[in-house]
This record gives sequence, structure tokens and C-alpha cells, in this order.
Amino acid sequence: MTGITYEDFLDLSYEPSDADLVCEFHVEPAADMEIEAAASRVASESSNGTWAELQVEECVDLSATACDIDGSRVTVAYPDALFEPGNMPQVLSCIAGNIMGMKAVERIRLLDCRWPEGLATSFPGPQFGSRVRDEIFDAGDRPILATVPKPKVGLPTKEHVRVGREAWLGGIDLLKDDENLTDQSFNPYEDRLTESLAARDEAEEATGESKSYLVNVTGPTHDMLERVDRAAEEGCEYVMVDVVTTGWGAVQTVRDACESHGVAIHAHRAMHAAFDRIETHGVSMRVIAQLARLCGVDQIHTGTADLGKLANEDTVGINEWLYSDLYGLRDVLPVASGGLHPGLVPELVSRVGTNVCIQAGGGIHGHPGGTHDGAKALRQATDATVAGVSLEEYATDYPELAVAMEKWGTETPR
Amino acid sequence: MTGITYEDFLDLSYEPSDADLVCEFHVEPAADMEIEAAASRVASESSNGTWAELQVEECVDLSATACDIDGSRVTVAYPDALFEPGNMPQVLSCIAGNIMGMKAVERIRLLDCRWPEGLATSFPGPQFGSRVRDEIFDAGDRPILATVPKPKVGLPTKEHVRVGREAWLGGIDLLKDDENLTDQSFNPYEDRLTESLAARDEAEEATGESKSYLVNVTGPTHDMLERVDRAAEEGCEYVMVDVVTTGWGAVQTVRDACESHGVAIHAHRAMHAAFDRIETHGVSMRVIAQLARLCGVDQIHTGTADLGKLANEDTVGINEWLYSDLYGLRDVLPVASGGLHPGLVPELVSRVGTNVCIQAGGGIHGHPGGTHDGAKALRQATDATVAGVSLEEYATDYPELAVAMEKWGTETPR
Repeated sequence: MTGITYEDFLDLSYEPSDADLVCEFHVEPAADMEIEAAASRVASESSNGTWAELQVEECVDLSATACDIDGSRVTVAYPDALFEPGNMPQVLSCIAGNIMGMKAVERIRLLDCRWPEGLATSFPGPQFGSRVRDEIFDAGDRPILATVPKPKVGLPTKEHVRVGREAWLGGIDLLKDDENLTDQSFNPYEDRLTESLAARDEAEEATGESKSYLVNVTGPTHDMLERVDRAAEEGCEYVMVDVVTTGWGAVQTVRDACESHGVAIHAHRAMHAAFDRIETHGVSMRVIAQLARLCGVDQIHTGTADLGKLANEDTVGINEWLYSDLYGLRDVLPVASGGLHPGLVPELVSRVGTNVCIQAGGGIHGHPGGTHDGAKALRQATDATVAGVSLEEYATDYPELAVAMEKWGTETPR
Repeated sequence: MTGITYEDFLDLSYEPSDADLVCEFHVEPAADMEIEAAASRVASESSNGTWAELQVEECVDLSATACDIDGSRVTVAYPDALFEPGNMPQVLSCIAGNIMGMKAVERIRLLDCRWPEGLATSFPGPQFGSRVRDEIFDAGDRPILATVPKPKVGLPTKEHVRVGREAWLGGIDLLKDDENLTDQSFNPYEDRLTESLAARDEAEEATGESKSYLVNVTGPTHDMLERVDRAAEEGCEYVMVDVVTTGWGAVQTVRDACESHGVAIHAHRAMHAAFDRIETHGVSMRVIAQLARLCGVDQIHTGTADLGKLANEDTVGINEWLYSDLYGLRDVLPVASGGLHPGLVPELVSRVGTNVCIQAGGGIHGHPGGTHDGAKALRQATDATVAGVSLEEYATDYPELAVAMEKWGTETPR
């Protein structure tokens, strides 16, 4: 092979093979460049190209091919031999690495991926996925309900646990830590873990329902592994990882540790919007969700289908992908969160269905009757919705729901 | 504390204390919102707020304060007790987490941080930083020169090593793997490591200079730790991590392992431009460089001061921060890379100085005389620049430089 040039990476007659990783990009070329030239540079830089013509004696052909251009939408097919199996950081360094900063493009966004079987199944996928609904809870056909004590940081352990207990007793299934609560002095990890699990046991006893606590283990990998071990030893069924701020290198190793303990992983996506919010640049949430499924988280935040306080792309489409067949890898349970309250439940369920986790923070604890009443109201709204009864009608029999409806109505907060 | 509301997070009379983490944001409020309201929501969501009014019995005050607004520039001060010491993912989940996706802002960018001593020194910082120039090499006052074999993937091990040997013999100090070469079947990690180090020893013998090889260990944390162990055992002084695609959770743990071996870390930043390229949104490269220094990488790519093929912000300002005093933490050696070739060296050095690593790939291997001549040309260009001699003049005595100048001149490639 001699004289590799950019042009070698463009072939509009190429049909991707089943073994190719096929990526869809939005590409806006630099001002003085044609889309074809920009597309070939995307394929080049993200596989084995460089800007200079090279003379090499021997080389395995790992070239990506820009194989379709439709307006600003560019399809690039990558040969699977380009990738190290089971190494997500390496995959990302190819398909979402240097290309994001090339002068040859004004903007570029990785929109979607079609994963070939070999590469996909080199990752473990989720241990549980939506099976958590049956295997950890017994929620039947209704959504799982989760909450985070608020304020999300600052509560001393005792108060954090009190809030959690009230939420469980009111009808919440899953108590979770929020994204920035890990092991701070006002609420140390081990105390919180032990005391929360004791309260969980009491709540299970009192309600006759399965309850669970999800502790945030986010941190340097070794700290996370110690925290996972500790959580498992104490009987915790779940851990949470801030997958974007922690990163895939750590997530993959923690996933392995969780399998050895049979512990499920809840993925918080804090920071995703740093690179998925501008619709013409970065990496889409759809792709992040794909990476999370391959790496093996069991549930992940995918937004509220525009009902909450956080902007989000295509919750419904992403959730469908998370449920879709992927060479036998398990599905992922989507989590809707961020500004939700009881009055939004019917519309949320009409948009995302019931195979989800609905999480509310302020929408429970901000209830005028406090956390316990707030939890009851969210559970009532959910039961009503699953039963096909309007909240207005249901609220005539359930005062906690009536109070929530009076306070918040069906408005989306900001 | 009762009735926490968004307004509690705005206080323009507040003077940040020395213990606060002070962050500068660019904020564009939602269409119907004032900047003050958006700023208070940024402070709220990134510390301990929620959208609903809360009644809580006891809470440690961890509120962040939006304390200055100047046009679109918002300053937020975070109390240090909000953060878990030494936990970078947790810090990021606060200061660059959910706020990136709030509907209350159209766009938001974390521009800069002022790190308080307690939090900063809870991180280890670099082991070596720019001391690599003396402790691993003996480069005197000139920039360290590095190269990556190109094509960056596809070369079989033998060819990869041949290219590396030629580069070392021609005058390059540091041979490195590129961001997407890890452990693929065409060039397995262990073979590449062993054979490259053997070639390094030969090159040291032949040139009388210190040479080094930098192997890319990027992957799931446990794989990385095994690769670091192996590299150290075989006498490798350096490893490379794609810090953004791997993530800080893994980087922190790998940093600890590298210290136990006395191995330096080179940080590749593939994917940074997914969130730092749009100037009004995301997280700046300046902040990424700060995180990298705190977590303890020894060198990091900070761009080419606009001379290369990749867009980049403020290389000079970032480099100055990397050299600046930070409570005794070591500095970081900046790496300039991406489309560089010999003709660009004088201008690059005039912009970034000599306390840098200059890395060229295509600008060496694309030389008409091949890698060996290309390496000689880059070294000649560097020696000329440090000696204050123009390349035109120097090239009259050094034919390899003359050929490079004839081919590429002083143009910036794309």
C-alpha cells in the first residue's frame, strides 16, 4: 500500500457489510470545503488516515469508508478489525475522537450507530435490565417509582434516612442518592449505606413490598470497587454510577465487579448535555445510551419526553432502542427524571409507557404534606394512570394526590 | 432551614472565600428568563437545590452562590464541603453535570475554575510534569520531539517498530502509539511493547541519546492496570491514556498505579472537542487541562496555537496555566500535535516556547525520503529554531530539512 490519501476514504458505491460498525454523522464542512472532502476526512481521521501522503511497506487495510452522503448526513462504515473487542474507550477514540475537532468541519455530530454482532457481543450488556422490575421488585405492570432525598446534598445521614423511610412507606420502590452525593463528611458513605438499608428492611416489613436502596459509588475506580464490595456485603441490590463524569474505563471494570456480586447498576448521566445538547455537534444521547447498554448498565436516565426541567432529545426513540433486540444482550430499563411530579404521570406514561422507572425528587419532597404524602401522591398518580382513571377523578378519593394536583397541576417546572 | 428556593442561590454581594471553588460560566438564559434567574438556577442545580420549595428539618448549608454577573459571564462560588476530596467524577457531577441540560439556559459553558488549596491538594498532581525533559530525556533547552507511526492503525508490529526505529535514529526522542491503537490483532499490545523497547535500546546505543517509547494502555481500568504493570516490568518509562474517552475514574486509579512504578502518563485528549468546540457551550479545554493536572497526568495535548489541522482554543493561555503555581503540585508538559511539520516549528516555538513536546506524524513519515529523513528534518528545524537560525539558512547545510521545506513550506495542513 502506498500513497494513502484522503480520497481513498470516500466510496459512495460501498455497501457496508454485516461486520462493519456503521455510524451516521451530521457534518457541516469548513467554509471552503465540499461535503465529500469533509466526509472523506472524517473517515480518514477516525480510522487510519493522516493528512500527509505516506509510503509504507506493509499495512493491514483498516480504512473506514464514507459510503453515503445525504445532505449533511454522512454514513461511515468502519471495519471491525479497527476495534479492540470489549474496549469502549478505544471504540470512542475512533468514532468520536479527533474528528470532533478537525478544522475540515465546522460542526460534526455522531448521531447513531449500527453495531455489528462481533463487536457488540464482545461487551457483556446488562445483567438485569428491565428484569429488575421482577427480580428486585414486584411492581407488576406499573412503572417502578424512585426518589432522591432533596436537597440532594447537605442532609445529615439521619435526616437522609428519615426522608428515605418516609418515601418508601409512602409507596416509592427505590430510594437513590443523587449524582453529587458520594462520600462527604456531612453524610459518609458507610453510615449512609448501613442506616439506609436498615430503614429499607423496616419499610419492607411495614409495607409488605420489596424496596431497594441505590447507593452512589461514583469515584476513582478503586474507590468504586471498594464501595461496590461494601454495598454487596451489606445486602444492597443496586449501585449508581455517574457514567459520563466517571467514564467508560471505570464503568466497564465496575460492571465486572457488580456481576460477581449480582448487584445492578443505575446509570446517572450528569454531564451528557455538555456534548449532546447542541443538535449539530458532539455525540447524541442515543449513542451514549448505546454505549451504556453495551457496557452493561441496567438502567439509565433518558429524559422525560420533554415534560421535565431538563432538555432532552428523543426519549421515546432512545427507549425503543434500549428495548430492541441486540444479539441477545439484555435490554436496559429507562429512567425518567428531572422536574417530575404526580400531575405529569399520565402524560409521561402516554409518551413512554410503563416499562420505565419514574423518578421524582422535588415532586415528592416539595409536597405540602412532606415526603410521605408526596410519595403517596406519586404512587396514587401512577396507580390511577395504570388503571386508566383520570387524576382528577382519583384525587377525589386520595387527598394526597388532590393536594399535589392543587399545588402543581400538570405544569412542567423549570 | 426551610423553604429553599432558587433565589437563595443568588447573592451579588458575596465575596468568594479562599476555600470556595470558584467557577466562571458563560450563560445564555432561556428566551423568557433573566440572567439573574438563570444564574441562580445554575448555582442551585449544581449544588444542593431543586425546583420545588422544600421543608427539611436539618441540613448542612452547601449552597453555591451566583456571586457575580457581567454580561453573559456568571461567577459561581461553591463551598468546599460540597465536594468529596480527591474524587474528580464527583466534582464534575457538581460543576458540569445537570446544569448543562437545564431548560433554564439555552447554552452554558464552564470556562474556568479557581481551585481552593484544600480541594486541589486532595489530588496528587503529576509525578513528573515537565521534569520528564531532564529525568527521562536529556533534551537540554529544546522541545522534546515525538512521533506516532502512521497510518496510526494497520501497521503490523514489525513495521510499526521499523518506523519507530527510523524515527529515533533520525533524532526523535519519544515514539508513541496513537489514540486508537491499543491491543488489536494486527499489532498486539505485548508484542508491540517488547519489540519497541528492544528497538529503543538499539536506538539509544546508536545515538548516545535517551529515547523512550510510550505505549497506549487505554481500556477498561483493569486492563489498563495490567498493561501498566507489564509496561513497567519491561522497562517502559511512559504510558498513554486517552483521558476523555477513558474517563477520570479510571485515570485516577491508573495514576496511582503509575506512581508505584515511577511511570509517566501522557494524556491524549481524543473527544475533547465534542464538548469544548462550540465556544458558547460545554466545558472548555482550559478546564479539561486543569482536571488532567489535578488527576496527575504528566503531559497533555493542548493544541498547536492554531497552526495544525485541529481547531483549538487558547493553547498559550492553557499552557501558562499548566506551568503556573498550584499549591506545590507539579506542572504539566504541554504537547503540540496535529498536522505539524518542520516548516511550522519556528512559528510554533515563537507562540508556545520551548518547554513543550512537539509531536509530528504525517509531518515526519510523509517526508519524500521517508521516516528517517523526516525525523532528521524535524530535529533540524528544532535545532535551528533554538539556535535562532532561519530554516532557509539552516536548510542549505541540511538536505533533509531542505526537502521538507520544499514539500510543505510553512503551510498549515487540513
